[in-house]
Amino acid sequence: MPAQAPADNTLTLSSASPTVPAKAPTISHFRLANGLEVVVIPDHRTPVVTHMLWYRNGSADDPQGKSGIAHFLEHLMFKGTAKYPVGVFSNTVAELGGQENAFTFYDFTAYFQRVAAQHLGRMMEFEADRMTGLVLSDEVVAPERDVVLEERRMRTDSDPASQLSEAVQASLYVHHPYGLPVIGWQHEIEGFSRADALAYYNRFYTPENAILVVAGDVEADKVKQLAEETYGRVPARGAAPTRLRPREPEPRAHRLVTLADPKVQQPNCSRVYLVPSYVTGERETAAALDVLAHLLGGGHTSVLYRRLVIEQKIAVTAGAYYMGHALDDTRFMLYAVPAEGIPLEAVDRAVDAVITEVVLKGVSEDDLARSKTRLIADAVYAQDSQFSLARWYGEALSTGQTVEDVQLWPERIEAVTSEAVKQAARLYLGKRRAVTGFLLPEATAQAA
Amino acid sequence: MPAQAPADNTLTLSSASPTVPAKAPTISHFRLANGLEVVVIPDHRTPVVTHMLWYRNGSADDPQGKSGIAHFLEHLMFKGTAKYPVGVFSNTVAELGGQENAFTFYDFTAYFQRVAAQHLGRMMEFEADRMTGLVLSDEVVAPERDVVLEERRMRTDSDPASQLSEAVQASLYVHHPYGLPVIGWQHEIEGFSRADALAYYNRFYTPENAILVVAGDVEADKVKQLAEETYGRVPARGAAPTRLRPREPEPRAHRLVTLADPKVQQPNCSRVYLVPSYVTGERETAAALDVLAHLLGGGHTSVLYRRLVIEQKIAVTAGAYYMGHALDDTRFMLYAVPAEGIPLEAVDRAVDAVITEVVLKGVSEDDLARSKTRLIADAVYAQDSQFSLARWYGEALSTGQTVEDVQLWPERIEAVTSEAVKQAARLYLGKRRAVTGFLLPEATAQAA
Repeated sequence: MPAQAPADNTLTLSSASPTVPAKAPTISHFRLANGLEVVVIPDHRTPVVTHMLWYRNGSADDPQGKSGIAHFLEHLMFKGTAKYPVGVFSNTVAELGGQENAFTFYDFTAYFQRVAAQHLGRMMEFEADRMTGLVLSDEVVAPERDVVLEERRMRTDSDPASQLSEAVQASLYVHHPYGLPVIGWQHEIEGFSRADALAYYNRFYTPENAILVVAGDVEADKVKQLAEETYGRVPARGAAPTRLRPREPEPRAHRLVTLADPKVQQPNCSRVYLVPSYVTGERETAAALDVLAHLLGGGHTSVLYRRLVIEQKIAVTAGAYYMGHALDDTRFMLYAVPAEGIPLEAVDRAVDAVITEVVLKGVSEDDLARSKTRLIADAVYAQDSQFSLARWYGEALSTGQTVEDVQLWPERIEAVTSEAVKQAARLYLGKRRAVTGFLLPEATAQAA
Repeated sequence: MPAQAPADNTLTLSSASPTVPAKAPTISHFRLANGLEVVVIPDHRTPVVTHMLWYRNGSADDPQGKSGIAHFLEHLMFKGTAKYPVGVFSNTVAELGGQENAFTFYDFTAYFQRVAAQHLGRMMEFEADRMTGLVLSDEVVAPERDVVLEERRMRTDSDPASQLSEAVQASLYVHHPYGLPVIGWQHEIEGFSRADALAYYNRFYTPENAILVVAGDVEADKVKQLAEETYGRVPARGAAPTRLRPREPEPRAHRLVTLADPKVQQPNCSRVYLVPSYVTGERETAAALDVLAHLLGGGHTSVLYRRLVIEQKIAVTAGAYYMGHALDDTRFMLYAVPAEGIPLEAVDRAVDAVITEVVLKGVSEDDLARSKTRLIADAVYAQDSQFSLARWYGEALSTGQTVEDVQLWPERIEAVTSEAVKQAARLYLGKRRAVTGFLLPEATAQAA
């Protein structure tokens, strides 16, 4: 966790797990005097750097009645500062042949650029500048609000699958803000003012709340020097902002959410369970859930796929996913798309049967071994992508994990036993913890 | 609405509707200098008064992460003041042969006593005193928190029907605090401190936020004099506290919440729709929903009862209810208890068929006339109870309605047409607006 991170801590990924190849980089991890946390991941394969700035605030930190403001701020961060008016930063990245983007999720907001290594200092200068220098006028805020509303209309309001997903998440979290859409509810976006945006910016865009992740063709000493010359000049606020989040009560009743719409061409059923994350549960429990998700629904050799698609031929695809990186209790998801003519209820019953079998009989050692090997291999392959590598650390650190957690992860996966997987299924895949979503191709007169 | 209420307004219930008998009382409605609103309902049939103090804050105003604090404060209000230590007020009421109680709901908290008319002044003195004089020590707060936790365990946590109801409400309101239980979530009650209680008390227990309703053997002039001598001494704060409530987004998907528990002896199915209240919708729409609820499920002559219980014999009872008095979008509820051996799904389909029929074909003039007559008659009979009469005004005024709204209500019901009822069903009883609850007698291995 950030508060406990050592002031200058260098750990080696290769020391963490025998399964990770020797080329694994030596990570540097330190903190500037103003509280900004820095992670450096050397990667000298190409003369490129990925520069990411992560803020420990996402949509789940949106103030009550202001859902979507984290994402709105992400948009506004491209609107220029006192020093660099709108367009200067982005145009510079483009002129240097680089790429840039930003993303907002439940627990974090992140900004990144990928440029030739010698331009790292300029990226830091720009990014540090917009941590405090943002200029927000009504002329900027109002049109950008319309842009976000249009984004919402395109992505969610015109897409039945997204509408259902929004309703399923809202049903899963009856109290905790993970139930709110990241983009926000339309009527609350409509109410965003310049004052709202400024208040949010001033609260969360501070050095104590940020994590700088640099991966690429650069050494830690150089990053530290550049960071001190840029981010280091941002005045400290004294403490990181507080994240106020109501806790989700223990779920007691299964919920089935059904959305029927004539626009739906392909029905599907999904299931999401409220489960512990890597920080709300034991690390071992979360690792078991990671293995369980892969074993149940990671690819064509998974149990759900084999059972529903290959053996029973009632689905055309099926899968599972565990969102382990989360500050609060998180989601374990299953989904299946029925084969032509098969009712969703039949597919849903088949999913239930697979879960019940795992809960009662456990999993095979073959499935367990295959899932573990694959998960660890994927983690190794992910290091081939500078972006993936940087994102992994940023996501872990902004959701309450440590550099060491990232490095120990392969070892923790390796240590998962079939008993732990069965136990995780028994404890967390009970139907009362779950919301099932049914997406149907047409509405009856009444459902409309 | 309170802010628009005239400073000294006297209206006559009998003038509002020709269906209300001539004995209907002359209501006085005025405001003290410190903002406290007063309603006096003379009732000279017995030498008794009902004294009620309503505060415009209920569980839906609980601050984020402090669900249940409105109800907790209701408990603490009986813990004594600097002037009258714990027990003095209640003992006095008992010695005078009176009754007292208090209740907390989503939009209000109310305190009342019923005593012989000559003791009204003493009740006012006590009630005005605890508007500002409450003494809250840790020795009082901590044990009372345990009392509330025990109340929650008894009423909700050990009762599957209450658990289901809590889950259904939470599913209906994905954003608005009507989805929170009035008593609060257990883990948040556990966290209540003396400071939380005091902050809440200081925010909401003010003269501007209160409505005094006195019904009984007393004249308005006397009530005004007594009110000025008691409540009138409470210093004004300047303005009523603000109620901050996020608005519920438009629902898009039907939700079925299923709770299975071995303790359940009698299964049932319920349905709750998100609909306008008397203040969020047109008054005419709300009146149509009142008639629709009665027509569908008010007693043994209602359509649901006739269809499910008498004709199809698949249910042992069925009913409907509309919670029209609410500051924000509210609930329209249906329920049915299946006959022995009938699956809930069959009963649920029969309920759907009744709704669909109303939506498509409308309602009969006979049913309409019977419901309207009955609703208006019930309102007249309610005047026989001093308590019901006082509560009616208190509830209306604390949920954004006016004295005139209460008085015009019979007329509005009388004006409802069959077309308005059909239209209300069509607009608001679509399944996407609804949550269905299934209570089942036993859990499968997996659902447990």
